[in-house]
Amino acid sequence: MSEYRLYCFGESGNCYKAALTLALSGCDWEAAFVDYLGGETRSDSYRQSMNELGEAPVLEHKGERITQSGVILSYLAGQTGKFGGSTDSERREILRWMLFDNHKFTSYYATLRWLVGIDRSGDPEVHKFLRGRVLGAFGIVEKHLRDNAFMLGEEPTIADFSMVGYHYYDEETGVDRGTFPNINAWAKRIAAMPGWQHPYDMMPRRASL
Amino acid sequence: MSEYRLYCFGESGNCYKAALTLALSGCDWEAAFVDYLGGETRSDSYRQSMNELGEAPVLEHKGERITQSGVILSYLAGQTGKFGGSTDSERREILRWMLFDNHKFTSYYATLRWLVGIDRSGDPEVHKFLRGRVLGAFGIVEKHLRDNAFMLGEEPTIADFSMVGYHYYDEETGVDRGTFPNINAWAKRIAAMPGWQHPYDMMPRRASL
Repeated sequence: MSEYRLYCFGESGNCYKAALTLALSGCDWEAAFVDYLGGETRSDSYRQSMNELGEAPVLEHKGERITQSGVILSYLAGQTGKFGGSTDSERREILRWMLFDNHKFTSYYATLRWLVGIDRSGDPEVHKFLRGRVLGAFGIVEKHLRDNAFMLGEEPTIADFSMVGYHYYDEETGVDRGTFPNINAWAKRIAAMPGWQHPYDMMPRRASL
Repeated sequence: MSEYRLYCFGESGNCYKAALTLALSGCDWEAAFVDYLGGETRSDSYRQSMNELGEAPVLEHKGERITQSGVILSYLAGQTGKFGGSTDSERREILRWMLFDNHKFTSYYATLRWLVGIDRSGDPEVHKFLRGRVLGAFGIVEKHLRDNAFMLGEEPTIADFSMVGYHYYDEETGVDRGTFPNINAWAKRIAAMPGWQHPYDMMPRRASL
């Protein structure tokens, strides 16, 4: 049995944030499949025993279960001593970007991808609304990365691993990502790190079982 | 001059989260008006000198400026030693709820209130979409508060002050808050704490200037 077990599914960029951090930190970990698309996270038993928020990922370590990707990434940084910043000011900066990620950057993009590229549901007006929010959030990060190799400057942190979570998926969203060259270059820098893998190569999927 | 200065505006529940934490922690603080409704946060000068994310609140303390409500609340808990939890496990639990708040709880509700109750804009399909998300997030918290006086149990923490941020506003949203009795009782418990005030009594508004 591995030291860490991550309950996850391949389509989830939020799960990928945790998987990527485990991999880039050199942790001994294994993936356990959560059948989100089959409704597992909406069941009473999942909400009672795994996560009352009905979400994945869930990280199991030393008999404890930790939920919410931002908490998992902070926990891993604490355990491994890697990618978590070294001063109070850096840790605040990491938290700032992770909150922004959950609030606006990943949040709208992941929902848009789900509706347009996977579930093929939702009203076109909703897609348009989400696309507008995505472009606003992407614009802020594009500008920030003009002068920074990573979100905090020269070195990657868990803020990057959180924010890049949905970047390597190719499902349709109607957002032209070619118009964000700094974001694309940043994602390539992360993909060049030792241990990096594509989400579909790291985590099980319903289609592949 | 007060020890803390909070750049804020009354209509913002995200600003209120910080104002409320300052007040309940007994801090010496003052409010400085940000003219969000007049476009101040969208200006280049605001983004350059105050917050590149173009958001309020911004907290000024000892010559430093701190942004993002969740970072400000964590910073204040660190400074005052109040409401921040006392173990690693409690701090993780606080972070978990603050991330959920930014991702789903405040996030959708604040956007819905903005579109429906203040700006009177947006497509009805977008309102319907947001209302569905709000009901999902509210349902999770309603259930959690059935057995807990506050989010972490018997004692209030900054997770509560973050999550309650939009509760005391009365602008229309189309969500019937009467159907969430546990959330209402929890908000009343917070409003009974010494130092509590309504957001419109704590922070300047454009209309009141």
